[in-house]
Amino acid sequence: MAVNIPVTSKPRIVIIGAGFAGIELAKALASADVQVVLIDKNNHHTFQPLLYQVATAGLEPDSIAYPVREIFRGQENFIFRMAEVLELKPELHCVATSIGDIAYDQLVLATGAGTNFFGMKDVEQFALPMKTLADAMELKNSILEDFERAVLTTSLEERDRLMTFVIIGGGPTGVELSGALCELKQVVLPHDHPELDLKKMQVHLVDMEDRLLKGMSPGSSHSAQAFLSEHGVNVWLNARVISFDGMKVELSNGKVIPTRNVIWAAGVTGVIIPGLNKECVIGGRVRVDAYNRVPGFNDIFALGDVACMVSEKTPKGHPMLAPVAIQQARLLARNLRSILRKSEELKAFSYNDLGVLATVGRHHAVAELFFGKFRGFLAWIMWAALHLMTLVGFRNKLVAMINWTWSYLRYDSGLRLIFRPRSRHSRA
Amino acid sequence: MAVNIPVTSKPRIVIIGAGFAGIELAKALASADVQVVLIDKNNHHTFQPLLYQVATAGLEPDSIAYPVREIFRGQENFIFRMAEVLELKPELHCVATSIGDIAYDQLVLATGAGTNFFGMKDVEQFALPMKTLADAMELKNSILEDFERAVLTTSLEERDRLMTFVIIGGGPTGVELSGALCELKQVVLPHDHPELDLKKMQVHLVDMEDRLLKGMSPGSSHSAQAFLSEHGVNVWLNARVISFDGMKVELSNGKVIPTRNVIWAAGVTGVIIPGLNKECVIGGRVRVDAYNRVPGFNDIFALGDVACMVSEKTPKGHPMLAPVAIQQARLLARNLRSILRKSEELKAFSYNDLGVLATVGRHHAVAELFFGKFRGFLAWIMWAALHLMTLVGFRNKLVAMINWTWSYLRYDSGLRLIFRPRSRHSRA
Repeated sequence: MAVNIPVTSKPRIVIIGAGFAGIELAKALASADVQVVLIDKNNHHTFQPLLYQVATAGLEPDSIAYPVREIFRGQENFIFRMAEVLELKPELHCVATSIGDIAYDQLVLATGAGTNFFGMKDVEQFALPMKTLADAMELKNSILEDFERAVLTTSLEERDRLMTFVIIGGGPTGVELSGALCELKQVVLPHDHPELDLKKMQVHLVDMEDRLLKGMSPGSSHSAQAFLSEHGVNVWLNARVISFDGMKVELSNGKVIPTRNVIWAAGVTGVIIPGLNKECVIGGRVRVDAYNRVPGFNDIFALGDVACMVSEKTPKGHPMLAPVAIQQARLLARNLRSILRKSEELKAFSYNDLGVLATVGRHHAVAELFFGKFRGFLAWIMWAALHLMTLVGFRNKLVAMINWTWSYLRYDSGLRLIFRPRSRHSRA
Repeated sequence: MAVNIPVTSKPRIVIIGAGFAGIELAKALASADVQVVLIDKNNHHTFQPLLYQVATAGLEPDSIAYPVREIFRGQENFIFRMAEVLELKPELHCVATSIGDIAYDQLVLATGAGTNFFGMKDVEQFALPMKTLADAMELKNSILEDFERAVLTTSLEERDRLMTFVIIGGGPTGVELSGALCELKQVVLPHDHPELDLKKMQVHLVDMEDRLLKGMSPGSSHSAQAFLSEHGVNVWLNARVISFDGMKVELSNGKVIPTRNVIWAAGVTGVIIPGLNKECVIGGRVRVDAYNRVPGFNDIFALGDVACMVSEKTPKGHPMLAPVAIQQARLLARNLRSILRKSEELKAFSYNDLGVLATVGRHHAVAELFFGKFRGFLAWIMWAALHLMTLVGFRNKLVAMINWTWSYLRYDSGLRLIFRPRSRHSRA
């Protein structure tokens, strides 16, 4: 059954996913003579770079998420449908979704990336992922509940397990999370839990590489590691997870850490919707040419994290970063206009790398920008300014800014609600 | 098994419930030579008067909830335990909870009120209650999802059902909700849903009395009703719900309204924990004497919504209002100190009624205060000022104020996320 969407004489461009790539593309097509249909299973865009703040009770979910319909208010060629896409049907030029079939003239996959447990079933069962807003909320609930349990138990071993956090993956997410957990340990939890000895709270950060933040320079890696170690994070390099049974985690270096809490920030993989043939998938992502076109199709494209544009300079595709997604989306908007004009003059993608930033802890970041490298407070100011500027929507920026300022001034935040909305009432 | 709580030589006062009464009592006992143990199933206090704002996407949950441990930071005689109380065991001087038994020297029931469906099973199954933060979040999700569904359906009847909201109960909650739904209809949803004809959205308010806001004067009732009618709310007086099957609601006046959405704001009843004998319960609340003491016990008290203090002036007990709960809590703190000093000089409760306020809609409220009656914008300013002042915690006030100001200026809010955190990962 087809989904109820107004039929027009204009070509329909269907975009799957309201992440950075999908939102940017739909915006860039605002004045194009097309019908833009954006599909996402949520009704909001999530600002993923700040997810770790939600997970550690620094920001409320509403501050880093923004309703899609609000973003596109007034854009007349725009249609939104909240649905999960189940299957691509290239031969029928349509996609099957949870609410029915949606036909397209041009299809753009912007599904992003999801958690990859590399087949470790026990880790998948017991560890907490950190990729979606729901993950972050669950992580926050879980951390706060563990301290409520630590107060209750009379077993010292169990109390230690509850107060021990092992983060797998030393990329930006893992580094940010371990830094934020140390802040909780130092400035927030001692006041909330005078009954507990917070010195016993342990934060471990595990990475399989020989340094943290492998995507940055060795200098930045060392600066980040030094800052974390100074603030009490135990960093384990050259180590993988062997097993986790919910009570203890075993690492490849022989170390066994008794813990209830393993947070998985190690692996991501493209979110692949069934329906493309195997040749289209490489390294868990959708293979694309220099125009973000999926090989073998004239009318299917992929953007951002889910797209793998293999070239001499990028043998494994581009890094999964927001700027790549945004730049690809802008170029694709331009190329789609050319295609619709029947022009052959498509422009090949070339990534304009303006640099990378990662925050490490309270007012400490590392930045490698096109005009220089920075560490410490100055880098943190840059990081904060960039993220506040980029946050979609003015209200969100304002609320986030107040939360941050407040947190900065009071070394505290009032967001530590353990809260799970009930699932929907049974209705006919 | 006993819950792990430090044992001291001081008398232990156990308070069940972190509502207005429980919080106020625990605060008022800060300097008393006792151990205060507060139990609540949530780790936060919910500011119930603004629940309807969360339900209609006007405020985020964090703005009207505040972590209990944060409120009592620094209060040395205070212990918090997150637990559900299952049974009172007066003969053993302890309460059985989800985490074990907790013994008391003095017990205070401050469990508040819950939704009362008056035994109507079909209504309970299909209607949405409006009493807890989880209820409010679910209602918000449900309202927003219904509009996403309305866009999808090609059946005009189904679309009308999805866009029709029937609120049962013309007390403050019902009046506030129907006013806020009209705001959504007029200023927010038309921009979000250009595909829908929002003029077809209907809001019905049903009450069994002959006027709304029965707790206020006829003048205020009429002002509220006039305002709501002017803004498109269909008010049905002298009408009860006969049945609701999830598709249509039938009223006692013969009216049948096809709708998917019945919101239940009609009945509340005290939350009674098993363990007291029948004589202690009257009208769904716990019977108390003029000192808030449960008859037959020297060491059990009840406060606020759950307490029914029958007197000549209050044959059905006091109204379920925050000021009653707060005043009773303050007096009980004083009386408990007398009891612990073995003094017999207890002071009887007398409600100092400073008045009631109810907001009706955008910048319109009715207020009946001890110094005069007000309607319209001035009353709304009083209402807003009072609620902002009362909201626990400065950060919350600030965020709520910004949200409100922003909403006022832009006739909009960015809080319309449909969002349900996953339930906890399966863990050992």
